[in-house]
Amino acid sequence: MRVLVAQLNPIIGAVEKNVEKIINALKSARRQKADIVLFSELTICGYPPEDLLLFQDFLDAVEAGLQKIIPQTNGLMVVVGTIRKSAQVKEKSLYNSAAIIQDKKLMGFYDKCLLPTYDIFDERRYFLRGEGAQIWEWKGKKIGVLICEDMWQHSGFMKNIHYSVDPVMDLEASNPDLILNLSASPYQFQKPDTRVKVCEKAAQTLKCPVILCAQAGSNDQLVFDGYSVYVDKEGRLCQLAKGFDEDEMLVDTEMSACPCPFEYDPMRDLYRALILGTKDYFHKQGFKKGIIGISGGIDSALVACIAVEALGKENVYGVYMPSPYSSPSSLEDARALAKNLGIKLDEISIEPPFQTYLTLLKPYFHSKPDDVTEENLQARIRGTILMALSNKLGHILLSTGNKSEMAMGYCTLYGDMAGGLAVISDVLKTQVYALSKWINRKQEIIPRSTIEKPPSAELRLNQKDSDSLPEYDIIDSVVEAYVEGFMSPKEIMKKYNLDKLVVMDLIKRIHRSEYKRRQAPPGIRVSKQAFRVGRRSPIVQGWI
Amino acid sequence: MRVLVAQLNPIIGAVEKNVEKIINALKSARRQKADIVLFSELTICGYPPEDLLLFQDFLDAVEAGLQKIIPQTNGLMVVVGTIRKSAQVKEKSLYNSAAIIQDKKLMGFYDKCLLPTYDIFDERRYFLRGEGAQIWEWKGKKIGVLICEDMWQHSGFMKNIHYSVDPVMDLEASNPDLILNLSASPYQFQKPDTRVKVCEKAAQTLKCPVILCAQAGSNDQLVFDGYSVYVDKEGRLCQLAKGFDEDEMLVDTEMSACPCPFEYDPMRDLYRALILGTKDYFHKQGFKKGIIGISGGIDSALVACIAVEALGKENVYGVYMPSPYSSPSSLEDARALAKNLGIKLDEISIEPPFQTYLTLLKPYFHSKPDDVTEENLQARIRGTILMALSNKLGHILLSTGNKSEMAMGYCTLYGDMAGGLAVISDVLKTQVYALSKWINRKQEIIPRSTIEKPPSAELRLNQKDSDSLPEYDIIDSVVEAYVEGFMSPKEIMKKYNLDKLVVMDLIKRIHRSEYKRRQAPPGIRVSKQAFRVGRRSPIVQGWI
Repeated sequence: MRVLVAQLNPIIGAVEKNVEKIINALKSARRQKADIVLFSELTICGYPPEDLLLFQDFLDAVEAGLQKIIPQTNGLMVVVGTIRKSAQVKEKSLYNSAAIIQDKKLMGFYDKCLLPTYDIFDERRYFLRGEGAQIWEWKGKKIGVLICEDMWQHSGFMKNIHYSVDPVMDLEASNPDLILNLSASPYQFQKPDTRVKVCEKAAQTLKCPVILCAQAGSNDQLVFDGYSVYVDKEGRLCQLAKGFDEDEMLVDTEMSACPCPFEYDPMRDLYRALILGTKDYFHKQGFKKGIIGISGGIDSALVACIAVEALGKENVYGVYMPSPYSSPSSLEDARALAKNLGIKLDEISIEPPFQTYLTLLKPYFHSKPDDVTEENLQARIRGTILMALSNKLGHILLSTGNKSEMAMGYCTLYGDMAGGLAVISDVLKTQVYALSKWINRKQEIIPRSTIEKPPSAELRLNQKDSDSLPEYDIIDSVVEAYVEGFMSPKEIMKKYNLDKLVVMDLIKRIHRSEYKRRQAPPGIRVSKQAFRVGRRSPIVQGWI
Repeated sequence: MRVLVAQLNPIIGAVEKNVEKIINALKSARRQKADIVLFSELTICGYPPEDLLLFQDFLDAVEAGLQKIIPQTNGLMVVVGTIRKSAQVKEKSLYNSAAIIQDKKLMGFYDKCLLPTYDIFDERRYFLRGEGAQIWEWKGKKIGVLICEDMWQHSGFMKNIHYSVDPVMDLEASNPDLILNLSASPYQFQKPDTRVKVCEKAAQTLKCPVILCAQAGSNDQLVFDGYSVYVDKEGRLCQLAKGFDEDEMLVDTEMSACPCPFEYDPMRDLYRALILGTKDYFHKQGFKKGIIGISGGIDSALVACIAVEALGKENVYGVYMPSPYSSPSSLEDARALAKNLGIKLDEISIEPPFQTYLTLLKPYFHSKPDDVTEENLQARIRGTILMALSNKLGHILLSTGNKSEMAMGYCTLYGDMAGGLAVISDVLKTQVYALSKWINRKQEIIPRSTIEKPPSAELRLNQKDSDSLPEYDIIDSVVEAYVEGFMSPKEIMKKYNLDKLVVMDLIKRIHRSEYKRRQAPPGIRVSKQAFRVGRRSPIVQGWI
């Protein structure tokens, strides 16, 4: 059987454009003499459509999109992700479905059985659970269809969830010849590897090949990394589609396939995820140009590298905004970075508005001593300057805060937190260093002194991050254990051999800065558990 | 049977404080010779605890809280909302439960059957569905226990949902003598009335009294309005606890109860909801003082009234910040309002920083004409001044944008959108007028000229909102129909007899400004469908 895996990058809700892409893939499939064309989960509307699903006219448009596809399938079996309305109103009235089309005839639907409702997933908000898997015959072969999560439980990777059904096992008795899985599984650091293992396990159980079609592209905060999978009946990985891009992968299940190794570079893929997240956020909205406050520090340097890869160097505009507390080396580092990247850099001193504000506000400060107010003021002046340039010139501001700072609240609302997209807000500071070194692996792009100098916000004289925070390796251990691992303070103390006061102080900071993160720009989700998009924590609470 | 309904205001996660309140209510119940004490849904941890539920130590603390309550129940039947861990890991491993305690003995649990997962509710994210209702005997009477949503389907008020079970009907065969319902049902404009009807319907079906204990207080963005209900076996409303405050309501089901009318004033309750939302947001976090930018316009006037009621006039600090485009009458109106409310008002001109920025940025604007940049700049200077005062003096900034502006994006990120709490961001402009008139019903608090002058942002010469927007009654009709009613553009055109271009322009504005709302401060949810907390819409989308 020749299966064309059409790994597409649909735009949420752009039904007509998505259908056009689907129909183009069908034409390509016929040129390549494919028997079957497999698409990803919810291809017609894009994943995740969120509350657009609550609009009747939206559902009608998706249905009309499917009707447009059906006549284009002559000679083919086509399996495409779509939404199906339930005949009756139940707890919900929609299914997350795969339409099974054979030679211009809609044969039926497979409805997703396992509906993830945790982390970033909200499928129970919209969908009813499918009744179970069935076998579809095509060219004498028995084909089973599953959707994403349906196959995960069987792999044993899900520790805290045990659904009452296992759709993989449900198919066992039918002895299928081939399993097709429609997926929309978001990228997360070191996950693609897991997705392959999920396919391997299903193939081993069912003793037949498994082909998984992934979504490739970014929607809002979620990056879908592609890497569609073909695993043979022995459970060996034989083909892998491109990562982080659209691709067509033709699988011939009759040809003896060579097992291929999955050469996976976590740093390269993290970098590609951030690039794709930035690129699609801009291009899917029709924006071209980005502006970044370049401080001479490592975070803005990393964001500038990502922006240049995503948007092109001619579309990235850097602004260096010194304060009275900026060190001369910061300007040198900012200039060196801009030169290495080939981006425009302007220098605008924040001193004039800073002095104006201080004079203006003096009578209302009632002689109180300098404190965080003056630091925030500098950050907010920078935010205001960048937003003014953004408004006037049509650039989208990229904010540069990392996950460790966001966790600690070591950032200023409406200051350095301002922006249309928070590029690295789900990347820990220690990962920022690792990524920067990875970027510099062949030549120095991020200036070495940027990487080597101690981190500082430069908002007061000789300030260092370590004046008010523990070292970042400690912060990151605690953030990872608490935010991504849901560990208790006690468990964290034990695991990292840390003092109770240190751990509790860090956890309190995480909760106390929830109100800041609530107003952060959307960030690209790359970790197991990102703030806000996958983690819903109350601002007002008395637990911590 | 004498039932004490303990209508409490728990703090999310403050298990020890909540348990203390519960134990105090038990003491009061004995003094009042009650047989039964009824609490609200999830009283021990507060509703909604969100992802705190994913921490094992949090669940252990809730369990320990329950164990502390049990020995305090001598002579009483106590029904208290808590979390129960499932014996096995299934799709989830928790239940939203009522612990049934009789005379120091834990008799068992009732697990909530109908788990709302729509709008602001995410219960399927955390909870397993209960297996069904049962009868608990106490002092010779058969008592049925239900939790919130369990009773709603039966009322017929839920049009788009039909759960597969109806816990009210499940109890019918047992002929219960009394139904107890533990609720945490958030306030929404004109809803308390519905809640009473839900109780009436259940009482009529089961031919027995229904007592509902509500939560009273605000958690993050949700206001719980109290109004616990007692309906007799004829289905007549006989007692109602206080709205918007803690209360103890003693119900004696043996005494012939007089039906009491539900005298409900929608405007008064909307006002009280906004006051409670503000008060609890501050006090539950330990904050006392608020700062507001007073513009002389109606939105900031309304927010100031709410703040004074919530925090006390001595804790509200107004700042009037004129620009070159402010009209003289705005200052007069701001002063009159401050005088009427008895709050402190400072006047700080934004002209010096505005000129400084314009001079500083001129070389980088490349002679482009004045546009929205200069308007946003003024708003952001105001935001910066208010945040500097907030930081220096320890006041929380209240933002003053209304729902109509938030829908249209007629507001400036990091400018007038800055703040810790968006007090009226779920109140339509037409409701702002109605509320203001209601506040002035006895004496003029909000200056009449503030109410009567045409709305203006005063960010350029002679600017009026109507220069760039349709009239607010049109905007509000469309926002209500689209955001709260999920109607299609066609249906909206027909219902309000509006031109297609007008409707589509407004709907496009709603979607285009999603990115702004994503960074808005948390707003107090008072409508059927609030932005963000109850409505999840993608920023990047190609549907509208």
